[in-house]
Amino acid sequence: MTPSPLKVIVWNEFQHERENDAVRGIYPQGIHTTIALGLADTLSPVRGALPLQIGTATLGEAEHGLSEARLADTDVLLWWGHKAHAEVSDAVVERVQRRVLEGMGLVVLHSGHFSKIFRRLMGTNCSLKWREADEKERLWVVEPSHPIAAGLGEYFELPNEEMYGERFDIPAPDELVFMSWFEGGEVFRSGCCWQRGHGRVFYFRPGHEAYPTYHDANVQKVLANAVQWAAPRVQKVDDCPMRPPLEKLSPKAVNFGKVGIVQSQGDLQ
Amino acid sequence: MTPSPLKVIVWNEFQHERENDAVRGIYPQGIHTTIALGLADTLSPVRGALPLQIGTATLGEAEHGLSEARLADTDVLLWWGHKAHAEVSDAVVERVQRRVLEGMGLVVLHSGHFSKIFRRLMGTNCSLKWREADEKERLWVVEPSHPIAAGLGEYFELPNEEMYGERFDIPAPDELVFMSWFEGGEVFRSGCCWQRGHGRVFYFRPGHEAYPTYHDANVQKVLANAVQWAAPRVQKVDDCPMRPPLEKLSPKAVNFGKVGIVQSQGDLQ
Amino acid sequence: MTPSPLKVIVWNEFQHERENDAVRGIYPQGIHTTIALGLADTLSPVRGALPLQIGTATLGEAEHGLSEARLADTDVLLWWGHKAHAEVSDAVVERVQRRVLEGMGLVVLHSGHFSKIFRRLMGTNCSLKWREADEKERLWVVEPSHPIAAGLGEYFELPNEEMYGERFDIPAPDELVFMSWFEGGEVFRSGCCWQRGHGRVFYFRPGHEAYPTYHDANVQKVLANAVQWAAPRVQKVDDCPMRPPLEKLSPKAVNFGKVGIVQSQGDLQ
Amino acid sequence: MTPSPLKVIVWNEFQHERENDAVRGIYPQGIHTTIALGLADTLSPVRGALPLQIGTATLGEAEHGLSEARLADTDVLLWWGHKAHAEVSDAVVERVQRRVLEGMGLVVLHSGHFSKIFRRLMGTNCSLKWREADEKERLWVVEPSHPIAAGLGEYFELPNEEMYGERFDIPAPDELVFMSWFEGGEVFRSGCCWQRGHGRVFYFRPGHEAYPTYHDANVQKVLANAVQWAAPRVQKVDDCPMRPPLEKLSPKAVNFGKVGIVQSQGDLQ
Repeated sequence: MTPSPLKVIVWNEFQHERENDAVRGIYPQGIHTTIALGLADTLSPVRGALPLQIGTATLGEAEHGLSEARLADTDVLLWWGHKAHAEVSDAVVERVQRRVLEGMGLVVLHSGHFSKIFRRLMGTNCSLKWREADEKERLWVVEPSHPIAAGLGEYFELPNEEMYGERFDIPAPDELVFMSWFEGGEVFRSGCCWQRGHGRVFYFRPGHEAYPTYHDANVQKVLANAVQWAAPRVQKVDDCPMRPPLEKLSPKAVNFGKVGIVQSQGDLQ
Repeated sequence: MTPSPLKVIVWNEFQHERENDAVRGIYPQGIHTTIALGLADTLSPVRGALPLQIGTATLGEAEHGLSEARLADTDVLLWWGHKAHAEVSDAVVERVQRRVLEGMGLVVLHSGHFSKIFRRLMGTNCSLKWREADEKERLWVVEPSHPIAAGLGEYFELPNEEMYGERFDIPAPDELVFMSWFEGGEVFRSGCCWQRGHGRVFYFRPGHEAYPTYHDANVQKVLANAVQWAAPRVQKVDDCPMRPPLEKLSPKAVNFGKVGIVQSQGDLQ
Repeated sequence: MTPSPLKVIVWNEFQHERENDAVRGIYPQGIHTTIALGLADTLSPVRGALPLQIGTATLGEAEHGLSEARLADTDVLLWWGHKAHAEVSDAVVERVQRRVLEGMGLVVLHSGHFSKIFRRLMGTNCSLKWREADEKERLWVVEPSHPIAAGLGEYFELPNEEMYGERFDIPAPDELVFMSWFEGGEVFRSGCCWQRGHGRVFYFRPGHEAYPTYHDANVQKVLANAVQWAAPRVQKVDDCPMRPPLEKLSPKAVNFGKVGIVQSQGDLQ
Repeated sequence: MTPSPLKVIVWNEFQHERENDAVRGIYPQGIHTTIALGLADTLSPVRGALPLQIGTATLGEAEHGLSEARLADTDVLLWWGHKAHAEVSDAVVERVQRRVLEGMGLVVLHSGHFSKIFRRLMGTNCSLKWREADEKERLWVVEPSHPIAAGLGEYFELPNEEMYGERFDIPAPDELVFMSWFEGGEVFRSGCCWQRGHGRVFYFRPGHEAYPTYHDANVQKVLANAVQWAAPRVQKVDDCPMRPPLEKLSPKAVNFGKVGIVQSQGDLQ
């Protein structure tokens, strides 16, 4: 019996690639397509890894390609956005958040740190220091036994990347998988895991549009692992039910009238 | 030299007390007033505890009593809301969130688990099980060395409270201070700490409007401690700056044109 | 191709069952045998669950049944001990610890909270409150999406168990899966996960020898899930290597002789 | 009324300084003396900071200067060791661990990562990569609102230090305050907080004996803050008490004889 595949959507705002020749030279069909092809070509060594059924979605599509029906049938969503965060509709963001809380996995990429969906799930600004200077980034594996690090060495390098530096304004991650060293002197928590509701969220730092990062084999491994790690384990719609007691309650003799009440003391300040 | 006091606001939607005789009997001037008086009367044993300058604010005031200027001058905000969460303006919620991220402390009380501000800072639904059955709650101290537990015994009891039961849909707390036992058979993470941005957030479970919970000496101790714990340690406005390198960067010979580009493979699925 | 099974050892001090008729009535071949049979009979719904190859080991065997060679070939070890913790040799404890740090999973059961191996991995006393009074325990699932909770309902009950109550002196768990409600009024963190080195550690509270807890279907599900969760993801022997620089270091002009040295000031106090 | 001072001991193995002229040139009276003088001269901006009563202790003293009576009267212990970890008596290590669990603070410095006391409290090997190459270290503040970072800028630099690189084999810290960038290409979690029992533990990376690190003003600030942060909040001797029920237990009709017992199935493997 073949196991059911994980249903994956790679979402991209898809603007730099259409407006900028250099970016289009690297990602002629869009970053989403390169990421999707990388996922299709990369076997994750994570135990129990499932085959993937991979689609893409972009900002310009109706409902940004993320209709209620499509999201309901999605296991893991990857998110790349940069200059058009403000154009993502609040209704779609709300929908994605709801799906994450129900159990869908979310992998947020690079400049997606400032996306509406990531900031909403984190509750913080998610700000950081940055610099575009074609510098070297070295990603160190902090937790070698974490599924997202499966098959990697002690570190891997990207010869040219945008710098992101601490302080990264996030809630302390549940698990810290990668830390980056930058040639220009900064460090960064580059691979961070959180659980929100029943869903798993992974933030992965590299991926500036001006560099061929998503063609890198190590980056592709990380994403392949992250998709497996983020796969739903349960799918539950949220509720907040009234529940009858499971034990017999004692008879009460409550008389609130007897409670001593503090009297007014004028201006409290 | 007298140390500067912590500036505290107790916020309340202040509706039950005006609409319901039983609630008004317990909190004739509003829950906020009782909480404020309790804070004023309770000495926190936390090391370095500062005197408090306590004010109140309610939903019905202009900007809900939380103007930009007033919040900018506030160190810790306590929040009680229940039936009117939807009436709190998004602009004020945004403002409170910004202040927390800048360093202001926030203490969220009881049914405030469903307030806009708490859900926004958590990123989750914050749902739970509940029951109003006048039952006994016993709060166990899980971390006796936590400042918020200072001066308490191993547990304390509330003879009548609303039940809140797990699963409580929150991000795993950074620190878990109290766990509740309910007569009807449930348990709950009743005292939870998180950091968001530079600010500290504490959620404290008890406090249903139909019971004299905020007249209880142990509850008053918890709130007095929580205000000291949540006091700002820094006050920083968020930014996301470009920064020049701290180290000399190596000359690069980047030629993105030579990067091998994967060609289209039609439908990725 | 059949996947390689996980190699599991259920360890038991195996004393109560030989000395006490009531305990022998419940576990005629020892607690380890009942646990092992339960594992053999229980299919874990965890994704990627592997078949198990299950053995047992007891205190009375040579090297307590945990020779260097056998441990080196073990993926997950379960540990039940109570009255004979002191009889476990330090050499074997050291060996088990080393294997956990290298990647082996460890599931510590009930009174194993006071075992040498658990206290050594936690660094704390692991003390708690207790009472043997045949009372009801209800275990609430705090993280329904955690693999160890796979296939369980919102809670499950054990009609008679020993009580363990907070404060449980452990490092705050990385993940809290279960919380217990006890009829006598206490609560407990009953299912706790930690990572130590490359290995995963799970503590599971129930399992007093005087009750048929390990015959319970829900308990068996928890253990079956825990074994899958704790399975090694890497196996690495620890080292602490000197490493040459990855980047060219700048020439230095260090002159320590110029450093201003604080002179003695007599009694520092 | 003057507040009681915190009683602090700076412990040092005190060997390099007596055997090596270069080290003695930097720390003529021993690293412990320089650290102690730095603490005495540095005002911590942490709220509620207490005055310090500072003493020192060294390996060569009777009981390494850490008698039962002296430790019982100590609030915070700082620990510097490197080449003589094995010479520290297990009895003293046990005693220090007990005091930490009771509430005493512990600040572990640099090569103390391999001390018996640190490894015992962590439960892991605490290994790492290292290199002595006089290279630059830059420590980034990851949590600017943490008390240990009070009064520091966004980062500070040490012109020459030993390199320590990830993977650092520790339990994930409860709070990560500093991350280091090294000129040679590595990163490190350089300021890590844990709670163990009722005590707080802080590990601070810099401090190789061949460099004047403890004369650095920023390092002195960190240590001054760490001592205040690590000060005990409670002092409790551990116990593991039997406790009578707080609630009335129901009558039981337990009949273990009726429990169905699984029969032997021969070799379980």
